[in-house]
Amino acid sequence: MSEADQRRFSIFVSPLRGVLDPQGQAALGALHSLGYDEVEDVRIGKYIVLTVRGGSEERVREMCEKLLANPIIEDYRIESESG
Amino acid sequence: MSEADQRRFSIFVSPLRGVLDPQGQAALGALHSLGYDEVEDVRIGKYIVLTVRGGSEERVREMCEKLLANPIIEDYRIESESG
Repeated sequence: MSEADQRRFSIFVSPLRGVLDPQGQAALGALHSLGYDEVEDVRIGKYIVLTVRGGSEERVREMCEKLLANPIIEDYRIESESG
Repeated sequence: MSEADQRRFSIFVSPLRGVLDPQGQAALGALHSLGYDEVEDVRIGKYIVLTVRGGSEERVREMCEKLLANPIIEDYRIESESG
């Protein structure tokens, strides 16, 4: 297959609303202690970039459900960069 | 201040090219073992959403440099959702 078959997908995984986000809470506390009092909330998730050759967005969705995200506590969004 | 002063910033932190990404490598191996052989590369970074009241993008950039990203091994991009 040629370079042209290569696609890139960005996946944004974030904690569901209502689910505790200890990493975000820790960052919020640290920002306040540094004087950034304007920050009201911090949510930290994952930013995943997949390079695939000849795959489909449907397959990427499957990968998210099976491995890359935990749908019980996380939400995710997929963006295709060249499709 | 009113609700209108609230802004949301999305921050995308990713490992610099050439820097090892053990989490991404682990995900790549796991995807292959699940049969997703079309995946050639996986890079895993952080997706951070900040809610700030009355702040500026310049201040958010400072927060990234000081706390949210590690500029020695990570790159980051900031997107303002309402500015």
